[in-house]
Amino acid sequence: MIGVFDSGLGGLTVVRELLAKIPQYKIIYFGDTARTPYGTKSAETVTKYALENTRFLLEKGAQVIVVACHTVSSTAMPVLKETFRKIPFFEVVTPSFKKALQLTRKKIIGLIGTRTTVESGIYQRLFHEADPEVKVVVNPAPLLVPLIEEGWLNKPETRRIVRKYLMPLKIKGIDTLILGCTHYPLIKKVIGEKAGKRVKLIDPSEEVAIEVAEFIEKSFPLKESLKVNGEPEIWVSDLTSNFEKLAQLFLKRRLRLNKVSL
Amino acid sequence: MIGVFDSGLGGLTVVRELLAKIPQYKIIYFGDTARTPYGTKSAETVTKYALENTRFLLEKGAQVIVVACHTVSSTAMPVLKETFRKIPFFEVVTPSFKKALQLTRKKIIGLIGTRTTVESGIYQRLFHEADPEVKVVVNPAPLLVPLIEEGWLNKPETRRIVRKYLMPLKIKGIDTLILGCTHYPLIKKVIGEKAGKRVKLIDPSEEVAIEVAEFIEKSFPLKESLKVNGEPEIWVSDLTSNFEKLAQLFLKRRLRLNKVSL
Repeated sequence: MIGVFDSGLGGLTVVRELLAKIPQYKIIYFGDTARTPYGTKSAETVTKYALENTRFLLEKGAQVIVVACHTVSSTAMPVLKETFRKIPFFEVVTPSFKKALQLTRKKIIGLIGTRTTVESGIYQRLFHEADPEVKVVVNPAPLLVPLIEEGWLNKPETRRIVRKYLMPLKIKGIDTLILGCTHYPLIKKVIGEKAGKRVKLIDPSEEVAIEVAEFIEKSFPLKESLKVNGEPEIWVSDLTSNFEKLAQLFLKRRLRLNKVSL
Repeated sequence: MIGVFDSGLGGLTVVRELLAKIPQYKIIYFGDTARTPYGTKSAETVTKYALENTRFLLEKGAQVIVVACHTVSSTAMPVLKETFRKIPFFEVVTPSFKKALQLTRKKIIGLIGTRTTVESGIYQRLFHEADPEVKVVVNPAPLLVPLIEEGWLNKPETRRIVRKYLMPLKIKGIDTLILGCTHYPLIKKVIGEKAGKRVKLIDPSEEVAIEVAEFIEKSFPLKESLKVNGEPEIWVSDLTSNFEKLAQLFLKRRLRLNKVSL
């Protein structure tokens, strides 16, 4: 059983990718909608929440944990791995970093994300260690999450704000752009237009799903007879009609949400 | 000692008003920055948080509780009053409602606020009970909080989004507008411009401060010798450099923030 968690519902983009790749494996998702968002909060608070979310998924039977939240992936991984030593963890930063390194020609890579993700400096460190010539140009884009959660996916206001956030990155001549938040794939088209067609976009949800699918199929091979597609089990810490709408938006299908207080 | 709480730092606009009116009384503030915002969450979750926040302030010695959060004021007051029966509570909805009723000529009153505040229907109920002729025109304005928290107080994007939110209210001919969230006073000027100069704005922070000041001076008269201005004590459940900047923005002065985990 694969456990996936996020600060809210954005991580369902990862579930969608996993369902496309390995539909026969059981997925359990937890979205911390009662305390969302994480991206404006401190690394200390985010780490505390990440530990609680992981514990919940393990108690539910998860054998592998996928951190589908860029903010948690940027700040809490050492503590998570140290606390749950036997559990294989996947996160969204490393696969995005690897893919960007592989795609860039000019070695100028852009990153947009929440404030906490950008300020963690994790991408800057990873690229510097791998290739000191790579230049990382960053800009926190905190308004994109609320705009996406409002469903303003292609409104003029959203297009305008995306252009504003990308301007400093374009000026520096990026050729690759990391979408450093699981919400952003929903406005990939607008981001692509505003970034310019020569800029390659990295979607962390796709990248992490490739890694997870490979690991799962190798570590837990299924007998042919067991290959039956199941429904993912979705848990949230708060439930409103707007959260239900959002879940559908991210997952592109309707599913029952179960509520739990952590 | 007066206890004031809010989902985050917006409630400091109430503290500012109280300091202007009754500076000799000690104020303790709690901002739930670790779980902010409340306005997108369910009434059940908001009530749970409000109970915890009140308990914290009472343990710190508060004798009066001011709920400086529109979302809590709209959803959690019956449970709060039932749970802490001996404590005088003040909230931001009732004084705003009274003021609007007093100011309106055409009996068409506008309300913008968070989704949870608007959907609670509390204003609609209050006006209907007081005067069935009053028409309340509402529009949730969920993007204003993140825009204000970004410090985009007068950017073209903010002006444009404010205009968009107010358009349906203007069409219905409102002559009075309730700023149904403690963040909104910070963009009062933009809201005033977009609403039109004939529309009177109701600032809940001012209205609740008038009520609280009156009650406090009557119930706890101070001897002349005790009239010394003190500093308010500010507590938050999460601390980042951006939260520090925000606190200064709302309070218009610099103050140390103390962190506590609830």
